[in-house]
Amino acid sequence: QVKGDRLWDSLMEMAKIGATEKGGNCRLAASDLDKEGRDLFVRWCREAGCTVTVDKIGNIFARRPGKDNSLPPVMTGSHLDTQPTGGRFDGVYGVLAGLEVVRTLNDAGIETVAPVEVAVWTNEEGSRFSPAMMGSGVFADVFALEDIQAKQDVDGKTLGAELRRIGYEGAEPVGKPVKAYFEAHIEQGPILEAEEKTIGVVTGAQGQRWYEVTVVGQEAHAGPTPMARRRDALVGAARMVQAVNRIGLENQPNACATVGFLQVSPNSRNVIPGRVFFTIDFRHPQDEVLTKMDRELRDACSLIAVESGLEVEVEEFWYFPPTPFDEKCVAAVREGTKLYGYEHMNIVSGAGHDAVYMAKVAPTGMIFVPCEDGISHNEVENADPKDLEAGCNVLLHAMLERAQG
Amino acid sequence: QVKGDRLWDSLMEMAKIGATEKGGNCRLAASDLDKEGRDLFVRWCREAGCTVTVDKIGNIFARRPGKDNSLPPVMTGSHLDTQPTGGRFDGVYGVLAGLEVVRTLNDAGIETVAPVEVAVWTNEEGSRFSPAMMGSGVFADVFALEDIQAKQDVDGKTLGAELRRIGYEGAEPVGKPVKAYFEAHIEQGPILEAEEKTIGVVTGAQGQRWYEVTVVGQEAHAGPTPMARRRDALVGAARMVQAVNRIGLENQPNACATVGFLQVSPNSRNVIPGRVFFTIDFRHPQDEVLTKMDRELRDACSLIAVESGLEVEVEEFWYFPPTPFDEKCVAAVREGTKLYGYEHMNIVSGAGHDAVYMAKVAPTGMIFVPCEDGISHNEVENADPKDLEAGCNVLLHAMLERAQG
Ligand SMILES: NC(=O)NCCC(=O)O
Ligand SMILES: NC(=O)NCCC(=O)O
Repeated sequence: QVKGDRLWDSLMEMAKIGATEKGGNCRLAASDLDKEGRDLFVRWCREAGCTVTVDKIGNIFARRPGKDNSLPPVMTGSHLDTQPTGGRFDGVYGVLAGLEVVRTLNDAGIETVAPVEVAVWTNEEGSRFSPAMMGSGVFADVFALEDIQAKQDVDGKTLGAELRRIGYEGAEPVGKPVKAYFEAHIEQGPILEAEEKTIGVVTGAQGQRWYEVTVVGQEAHAGPTPMARRRDALVGAARMVQAVNRIGLENQPNACATVGFLQVSPNSRNVIPGRVFFTIDFRHPQDEVLTKMDRELRDACSLIAVESGLEVEVEEFWYFPPTPFDEKCVAAVREGTKLYGYEHMNIVSGAGHDAVYMAKVAPTGMIFVPCEDGISHNEVENADPKDLEAGCNVLLHAMLERAQG
Repeated sequence: QVKGDRLWDSLMEMAKIGATEKGGNCRLAASDLDKEGRDLFVRWCREAGCTVTVDKIGNIFARRPGKDNSLPPVMTGSHLDTQPTGGRFDGVYGVLAGLEVVRTLNDAGIETVAPVEVAVWTNEEGSRFSPAMMGSGVFADVFALEDIQAKQDVDGKTLGAELRRIGYEGAEPVGKPVKAYFEAHIEQGPILEAEEKTIGVVTGAQGQRWYEVTVVGQEAHAGPTPMARRRDALVGAARMVQAVNRIGLENQPNACATVGFLQVSPNSRNVIPGRVFFTIDFRHPQDEVLTKMDRELRDACSLIAVESGLEVEVEEFWYFPPTPFDEKCVAAVREGTKLYGYEHMNIVSGAGHDAVYMAKVAPTGMIFVPCEDGISHNEVENADPKDLEAGCNVLLHAMLERAQG
């Protein structure tokens, strides 16, 4: 049994770093505040008797030795970075639940057979540097280290240089054998709350396609340029935003379609926009539907561009297919919920998680707990301490099961 | 007769300051480059024997004395600031045409009765600091000096502080009597070119209404938040951008409607936008139609907000009614074109100009010359040296007529 209060106190302590006025968190990847959060985690892990290593992409591993340290570790973890207007639980919960498992094993004097590790993955959010899940992506060999080190934020700073600056470009090579990987996370959606379940047994994650779209028209004066002569990139982009939304609505149930980022150029009040850049985020649990949505998007954008005398470029920027998790790991999670008598249900993750990339290189499972109103990526993100404790108990059980076998 | 070559050379010399790669100019109001442009103008004016004064909002006046210096001056001028991706002629032409008039009077040894002044108005473009036509607006008592000094750019810097920094917060009080005001400008629209006229005799300017709109929805995760539960501020704003465009199209002939500036928050690829801020620029030669467009805008935005579960605030930010110019000044311009035998036509200005505010405090007229493809507020903005010379000759005639009477 984990200590729910201790877990909660650690969460609230971490939430002070990058706290926002509205009660949320802003700890962008590889920023000064990310460094502070990492430092606190490392200190806590050392106090709990772990050895800490950092790899070249800034992933942190806190290791609690087992009886047989030649075995690969049973690993858990998540991320400490947040959205610009993020919450106190997204990612942080999975990291500190891992720490609470270590503390509980210490309290009970349990020595596992395989070692246990808690991982902090670099830049899971994909907000400051895009795409998301970078640290685990390099770990799982989905991305090349050099490519990811070279990714730039909007100010042109690279992730590699920023990690070096905050002292988290480690010496270790990226990637190593892992016996099993578990990740606890808030659901970030409304389903568990609506169904009144404490635990979501995550069977897999839906697929994602991210795009970058550039629309080019012609800048001209907003006053003396007659409507009929305009090639207004923003009017075209606005139709495309509508089209993205419609594609989401027409592929129900389960499709999601979002334009989260949009920039107008030159962005001057009395200039007809000459260029708009925006991003698209498509998600679906079935790959065929994602492919269909892709076709619908390209058709819609081409049609709008032709009708409006604009040029458009639609570039696929990131893709991963729907990812089923490991049967045994999913079963270990389900057993844990039954053991403690928690209400539970199967669920597919709507978000990408480090677990999605870990599933490529290790047997993987995830544990979801409800979050208030299903809201995350928002400063008001909230979760019930009892649910967080329950998820952590299930994590403890699943990890123990795998670390003893 | 003015010297077209000398005028062109001065224009090209000025265009080196803040030159952009695509052959345009970026000299934002009260920036270092604006200072460089102002310094060059001041040097040229002193070399032409003028005395230079600067008022508290940074307007520059270069004075060529007359026989009776107790008379108010006959004034011409325009602005040296540009759009972020602006051209080489918008504003600059009117300033340097004024300088060319002074140089021509010097060459011919003409002493006018009233003194002649060339004005450079601060921040006409309204891009870095909004709204537009600030220097002439304070001069004409439309805006209070303190309000305009306190206007901020996107980085929070105030116009007052920036003028002080570049050494152009002058000592003179803002505003003084003016006998007549003329302004030469490129048309910034396609009409003169299409009608093959050299000179547009500007009879007045259309009215403008500028708005600031804020749309508020709810930030949430782009992955696990079902389409049906979303309150996506950008999807709503995109419909409003469409509505603005439709209102422009439905109020033809002559209406213009533009969203030039739009900002998404938090602007993160995997976050449903919680807030969008954008601006609207409505124009029409008839005030009743502007009022009708205002009603249509408010109705459309309210309806979209209600249908989408969003909140919207539509704030009128700037307004001036259609402005007819002074009959005698317009006649002086028309006479000049006839004298030189230039093809000409009456025209209403689609853009706001410093002349619009000057018309409140002095008899005012404007002279338009064609610009290539009607394009301005664009780096490719271009004009024919012969047309620029013609406009300057008409300006010379009109100013002389008023300065001798
Ligand atoms: N959990 C989470 O917010 N992950 C970021 C990647 C995504 O948008 O799915
Ligand atoms: N001439 C010009 O570009 N003026 C700026 C104000 C406006 O947008 O009309």
